[in-house]
Amino acid sequence: MARVMRLGRVELNVLDLEKSVEYYTKVIGLEETGRMENSVYFKAWDEYDHHSLILTKSNKAGLAHMAFKVETLDDLAYYERKIEQFGCTTTRISSHTRLAEGEAVHFILPTGHHCELYHEIGFLGTSVGSLNPHPWVLDSKGIAPHRIDHCLLTGDDLKTVTRFFIEALNFRQSEKITTVDGEELLGSFLFTTNKAHDLAFVKGPDAKLHHAAFAVDSLHDVFKAADLLSMYEVPFDVTPTRHGITRGQTIYFFDPSGNRNEAFAGGYMSYPDMPTITWTEDKIGQGIFYHRRELSESFMKALT
Amino acid sequence: MARVMRLGRVELNVLDLEKSVEYYTKVIGLEETGRMENSVYFKAWDEYDHHSLILTKSNKAGLAHMAFKVETLDDLAYYERKIEQFGCTTTRISSHTRLAEGEAVHFILPTGHHCELYHEIGFLGTSVGSLNPHPWVLDSKGIAPHRIDHCLLTGDDLKTVTRFFIEALNFRQSEKITTVDGEELLGSFLFTTNKAHDLAFVKGPDAKLHHAAFAVDSLHDVFKAADLLSMYEVPFDVTPTRHGITRGQTIYFFDPSGNRNEAFAGGYMSYPDMPTITWTEDKIGQGIFYHRRELSESFMKALT
Amino acid sequence: MARVMRLGRVELNVLDLEKSVEYYTKVIGLEETGRMENSVYFKAWDEYDHHSLILTKSNKAGLAHMAFKVETLDDLAYYERKIEQFGCTTTRISSHTRLAEGEAVHFILPTGHHCELYHEIGFLGTSVGSLNPHPWVLDSKGIAPHRIDHCLLTGDDLKTVTRFFIEALNFRQSEKITTVDGEELLGSFLFTTNKAHDLAFVKGPDAKLHHAAFAVDSLHDVFKAADLLSMYEVPFDVTPTRHGITRGQTIYFFDPSGNRNEAFAGGYMSYPDMPTITWTEDKIGQGIFYHRRELSESFMKALT
Amino acid sequence: MARVMRLGRVELNVLDLEKSVEYYTKVIGLEETGRMENSVYFKAWDEYDHHSLILTKSNKAGLAHMAFKVETLDDLAYYERKIEQFGCTTTRISSHTRLAEGEAVHFILPTGHHCELYHEIGFLGTSVGSLNPHPWVLDSKGIAPHRIDHCLLTGDDLKTVTRFFIEALNFRQSEKITTVDGEELLGSFLFTTNKAHDLAFVKGPDAKLHHAAFAVDSLHDVFKAADLLSMYEVPFDVTPTRHGITRGQTIYFFDPSGNRNEAFAGGYMSYPDMPTITWTEDKIGQGIFYHRRELSESFMKALT
Ligand SMILES: [Ca+2]
Ligand SMILES: [Ca+2]
Ligand SMILES: [Ca+2]
Ligand SMILES: [Ca+2]
Ligand SMILES: [Fe+3]
Ligand SMILES: [Fe+3]
Ligand SMILES: [Fe+3]
Ligand SMILES: [Fe+3]
Repeated sequence: MARVMRLGRVELNVLDLEKSVEYYTKVIGLEETGRMENSVYFKAWDEYDHHSLILTKSNKAGLAHMAFKVETLDDLAYYERKIEQFGCTTTRISSHTRLAEGEAVHFILPTGHHCELYHEIGFLGTSVGSLNPHPWVLDSKGIAPHRIDHCLLTGDDLKTVTRFFIEALNFRQSEKITTVDGEELLGSFLFTTNKAHDLAFVKGPDAKLHHAAFAVDSLHDVFKAADLLSMYEVPFDVTPTRHGITRGQTIYFFDPSGNRNEAFAGGYMSYPDMPTITWTEDKIGQGIFYHRRELSESFMKALT
Repeated sequence: MARVMRLGRVELNVLDLEKSVEYYTKVIGLEETGRMENSVYFKAWDEYDHHSLILTKSNKAGLAHMAFKVETLDDLAYYERKIEQFGCTTTRISSHTRLAEGEAVHFILPTGHHCELYHEIGFLGTSVGSLNPHPWVLDSKGIAPHRIDHCLLTGDDLKTVTRFFIEALNFRQSEKITTVDGEELLGSFLFTTNKAHDLAFVKGPDAKLHHAAFAVDSLHDVFKAADLLSMYEVPFDVTPTRHGITRGQTIYFFDPSGNRNEAFAGGYMSYPDMPTITWTEDKIGQGIFYHRRELSESFMKALT
Repeated sequence: MARVMRLGRVELNVLDLEKSVEYYTKVIGLEETGRMENSVYFKAWDEYDHHSLILTKSNKAGLAHMAFKVETLDDLAYYERKIEQFGCTTTRISSHTRLAEGEAVHFILPTGHHCELYHEIGFLGTSVGSLNPHPWVLDSKGIAPHRIDHCLLTGDDLKTVTRFFIEALNFRQSEKITTVDGEELLGSFLFTTNKAHDLAFVKGPDAKLHHAAFAVDSLHDVFKAADLLSMYEVPFDVTPTRHGITRGQTIYFFDPSGNRNEAFAGGYMSYPDMPTITWTEDKIGQGIFYHRRELSESFMKALT
Repeated sequence: MARVMRLGRVELNVLDLEKSVEYYTKVIGLEETGRMENSVYFKAWDEYDHHSLILTKSNKAGLAHMAFKVETLDDLAYYERKIEQFGCTTTRISSHTRLAEGEAVHFILPTGHHCELYHEIGFLGTSVGSLNPHPWVLDSKGIAPHRIDHCLLTGDDLKTVTRFFIEALNFRQSEKITTVDGEELLGSFLFTTNKAHDLAFVKGPDAKLHHAAFAVDSLHDVFKAADLLSMYEVPFDVTPTRHGITRGQTIYFFDPSGNRNEAFAGGYMSYPDMPTITWTEDKIGQGIFYHRRELSESFMKALT
């Protein structure tokens, strides 16, 4: 079965573009790769494509769109048909609508989020190159994640959006949170790669962003990221801990517009044949924050 | 494009079965899951399937076979056809030939190694279960890897075996080692998951095993594994270091029959659209051992 | 100038002795080394002396006494004189009042805490022995700290207790917390070894214990300790973070009687010639919890 | 008993001063704090005093002198007497003989090494300051150790030099290497702080330097240092491993003049009452390199 390749880009709405650019370059440590109209484009040092993050000036923070990269143009057409068959409307977005991008297939998720699939995008290469490369770069700045990792979104009907990703996009569900009786779905963790999740949903208002996550290597790097955030006086939501769900090590914090970011490390390898792991609502605290073992109000409430 | 799911099992020939069972349970920390005839079956604590390692009594150490798991029985038939189209002979191995296994497709690689594809195998589940699981188990033993990770094999014609995995099995090549003029292929690193490699070949005699690797979480766990090996007086080949190729952290050591094992952590995420990274022979030292920057004789010569 | 050797033992009052013994052996991972009357004695695997922790049954939790070990019997007499000269009454406690202990000098701190100095105590040796030792033990349990590390106590008059430790016991002050105008002392961190602190005081009620800390090796071990505490359902006060003060990595949690424990790693090397680092009250959040950057109510209020 | 405060400075002879300055600033990451005649002075970012390393142009690499800082001028006189009583000649070196230094007491060790004691030296403070300091600096370069840590020297008569440090300078011996019959002393590890060693000797030619070590925080930082050394193509002697002796994590490498450096982390806390740990010659491999378990020729032979 064909697999969508990865979460390729996230477009975030930001209130103050220059302040946001400074934050994503100096604190997160991304590289600015271009500007077009009210948008600035970024890639992480270890990504090959032209950009994985777009910041767009807006009067309201949040997720403008996220997009998944597919392996071939044939795959693009294949998933387009499957999305239509599922009952979602798709639109072709012409190439160069955004900088360095080819044609994309646009659709709106059952949870109201704007989503795209694409295959073509400009190639820049990683900062270490592809000939006898060093394992990392000497002159990196800030957290310097390897790549964009995943998004957590909120929505009302998690069963339908889960079914959408499984049926239309061939994703699998690694973990889920249910009421104790198992009847209601409160959280859904989905993967298309071998990561523990590439996208997740928790129960909440439609069309909202909970967080966009960047991948770092290890607990040590999560902790170093936390130190950096204090040096730069970035507001934290959650200080270093482990997730029960995915097992990853994590911190949460806010960009200048209030969009929640995560620096995430670890997590198990997922494979299509793994059973879905179930967390019951009575253990949700442990599932989300394995040490604290209870949810915090800010983590539940702050959405963009 | 369909992807082979993962390296699912490795069967190693061992000289003294009981001594080997003790080593793989006490030092590596695998769980014995069954015995049949001259073979003992093992899984790692974090694997779901009945076994990922089989030890078989023999008068000669080495790789008896390795097998890749595919997602469906349709995939099994699909790859069977592609292998035949490539020009390799396939044979169906009937279910229950080995313990807990379904039908498999057997073939011999261009490098002379026995290889299989399979879909069906008994399910045991991980040691932490799938309901509100803890991230790791309290009572683990030894190195306690998460899973079998990859094999490195030797062979004469690396171009053909690379082409085999790419054309017949839809693998990709993450990295390669070539002569400085780029003409000869000295090493080939192949992936079907999102790991930096799932299988690799270096130039050498056909049908030989260089090492079988187990996955641990972090540099810290590689180092802890190294400490454990000294406590158990296991012979080392390579003490803790980083690979330039894959960027992983690693140690190499030998099982009681002389089969080389590796405890491996890290390595980048691979995707089908990454360019193949090239290492030229003059930098091979750095590519293999990023710190030492030269190959050792034992690493080159000891094969089973 | 003579230096007191180290914090050698802490006696905690506990409500349920057997439950406490189970916690300190299974979760903390100390070794029980003896029992006498209503007390149970423990050492960490990497300590040489007979005990560093005594649990004593009581109807009220808290610190029964803490004791510092001096190098010689001459030092014992020397400090006894200096304590008397400072104006504190000392009493000789005869040997064998507690298990395996020699004579001790008892006195009450200006903050009301019971404190002792001693030189003689039974010798057991570490679990790895002193002949060609391995760096750690294979069969450890729980958090398995190297040693008791420090205590944090509360008291009203921090200037006097600081002066006591500096003048009578030759301690130094590594760090202090003051009001912004520098007039009032809100926290005082004292050392006699080369650790960032061996004992500390924060403003609060006299004669109370804030926490007793155990030393682990690294951030990784603090995090592993946090995982263990969740597995054993031990209540947390503070999940993994860094202290601004001392720079150490830390978690806080409660024993079954409500005595706060800490697992602490890192911290800088202190030397007698370092200037005292000053934290002003407006930065106290960052000083205590470098990431969260604000104090929590439980951390301030829960004392035994 | 008074304790010498610490190893305060090391003066290394170097062949090419500017190449050496570049190495110690860019690769090791020290700060240049002054120049006088043919010498350049450096401190680590976390040290308070004016310098801890002096590079002096010479036609022969090696240790020009090492110096220990004492707490007071009284201590200086006290140790001067004890050194004389031991039978070593002392000389007063007048202040400002070297940059920012006060008066020093010079003597030659029984092993022929030049050694000094001093109390006075200029104060610069750490790079993070002493008011509400951050735990580390954002703009550090290279390995960025916290401080100079220890030296390993060679000499013929280790019993006498050990007795010298114990009797004249109040050091203690944490570990020793002896022949299997216990008669000959092949290695001697000495401490005056609470580190596992501040100075060590192994059997070899008199007056030679085996290595000067810099302290980093953790295994992670040792490994990162190793990566950096490969990026800068610095020659390695020993890639990341653990010492059995001291338990520390370590790498060895060479400065441009061939002086061996070490980046060292960890090691246990020592106290004056610990028994001396004994390594017998048959286990010396494990004692020095806990994983490899055998000495290398380069580690034995390369001295300056
Ligand atoms: Ca490039
Ligand atoms: Ca299970
Ligand atoms: Ca012992
Ligand atoms: Ca300063
Ligand atoms: Fe997340
Ligand atoms: Fe490998
Ligand atoms: Fe503390
Ligand atoms: Fe050393």
